[in-house]
Amino acid sequence: MLANLRVVLVQTYHPGNIGASARAMKTMGLTDLVLVNPRQFPDPEASRLAAGAEDIVESARVVESLEAAVTDCVQVVGASARLRNQPLPHYDEPDAMARDLVTQAEHDPVALVFGRERFGLTNDEIRCCSHQVSIPANPDYGILNLSQAVQVLAYEVFKAWRRRPESGYVPPRPTQERQPSREELAHFHAHLARVMQASGFITQPHARTEQHLQALFARAQPNRKELSLLRGLLASLEP
Amino acid sequence: MLANLRVVLVQTYHPGNIGASARAMKTMGLTDLVLVNPRQFPDPEASRLAAGAEDIVESARVVESLEAAVTDCVQVVGASARLRNQPLPHYDEPDAMARDLVTQAEHDPVALVFGRERFGLTNDEIRCCSHQVSIPANPDYGILNLSQAVQVLAYEVFKAWRRRPESGYVPPRPTQERQPSREELAHFHAHLARVMQASGFITQPHARTEQHLQALFARAQPNRKELSLLRGLLASLEP
Repeated sequence: MLANLRVVLVQTYHPGNIGASARAMKTMGLTDLVLVNPRQFPDPEASRLAAGAEDIVESARVVESLEAAVTDCVQVVGASARLRNQPLPHYDEPDAMARDLVTQAEHDPVALVFGRERFGLTNDEIRCCSHQVSIPANPDYGILNLSQAVQVLAYEVFKAWRRRPESGYVPPRPTQERQPSREELAHFHAHLARVMQASGFITQPHARTEQHLQALFARAQPNRKELSLLRGLLASLEP
Repeated sequence: MLANLRVVLVQTYHPGNIGASARAMKTMGLTDLVLVNPRQFPDPEASRLAAGAEDIVESARVVESLEAAVTDCVQVVGASARLRNQPLPHYDEPDAMARDLVTQAEHDPVALVFGRERFGLTNDEIRCCSHQVSIPANPDYGILNLSQAVQVLAYEVFKAWRRRPESGYVPPRPTQERQPSREELAHFHAHLARVMQASGFITQPHARTEQHLQALFARAQPNRKELSLLRGLLASLEP
């Protein structure tokens, strides 16, 4: 799943961020992690924060340069918090970026590149990229923690992937309850109307009130069991 | 900005997750944090991981029950990793949830509720909610770290907010360079054709090749400065 989509972390300062990023990756189906000159790695903090994603940390490749990390890739997107005066094509929206990246990843390796916690990517490193992306954020406080940025972009990538018909992704759904037929609903409406009249709530058939309540119940989309429940309640309320 | 949208963390075990969640909130314009029975709070870890969002940690309210935290809210969405057999309406997609929540938040308080790191929310707590939401994830490893879940849902909420015309959000953009006119492009195409013929690359006008290259340059959308650059290059290549 998404095996062609590599995450590259450049000169990460805190090993904990490596672990947390690995965890973020794994929750979103990504497994290929490459570290460019991490300050401190391997490290127990990386394993600790990886939680169940230590396999990703352990199989992470360590390389000397960003060039080496992405040389085989056909698209390389650099995540950049600040706007640079670089003419590199720029995605304003992570979801648009993710759709393109996942499309390319179908046939060829691609990469999502993250820079240092404090300084991001250098201009030279941006030049190793084919595109830039930023995560739209609060203009007054817009820098996400590194592993949070990884989580958000991985989330968008997974979303782009699972929305493709060929992904075969099936959202977990509880067993669908059976819906009532129009006839069963009509019985319920009639029952409701009788109870409203019998109770004195309305003194004669009042189409607007009845329709209002029918629409309310319709929005709830009661299944057959629930409709039965309501009918039972109505029956006990009848004088 | 989004002042009506409250984030509620129920019985958070690690104070660091409180800090990291506050940071995640602030990057996405959220400021109202309520803690239900946090295990250890206040705590230096919370402030440390908040980075520049200590103001949110410091102004966080601490309450005894989830009911107390959301009693004034008109919509309460409980984030739930696991599918429950609860008939509470459920959002499969965080973006749909975010659009609804932001719409309600225009006029009334609403809340996004997160449970314990290990155990999520109890069934009683889910009953304090009007809706559930899950973050679609890797079926084999789908539990995000608490503050990462906060980051992803806050990101979707901010996205829903900024995409509303009345938000006034303006994405940071570099100054737009001026585009060339059709006439200037026609000059460029003619120049390119001359150089291709003069070099012997094509021996006579070859419409298909010329159109292919014109289309390639069109995709790059060269601005006027860049077109000038290209003309200069072509001029130097002419024999």
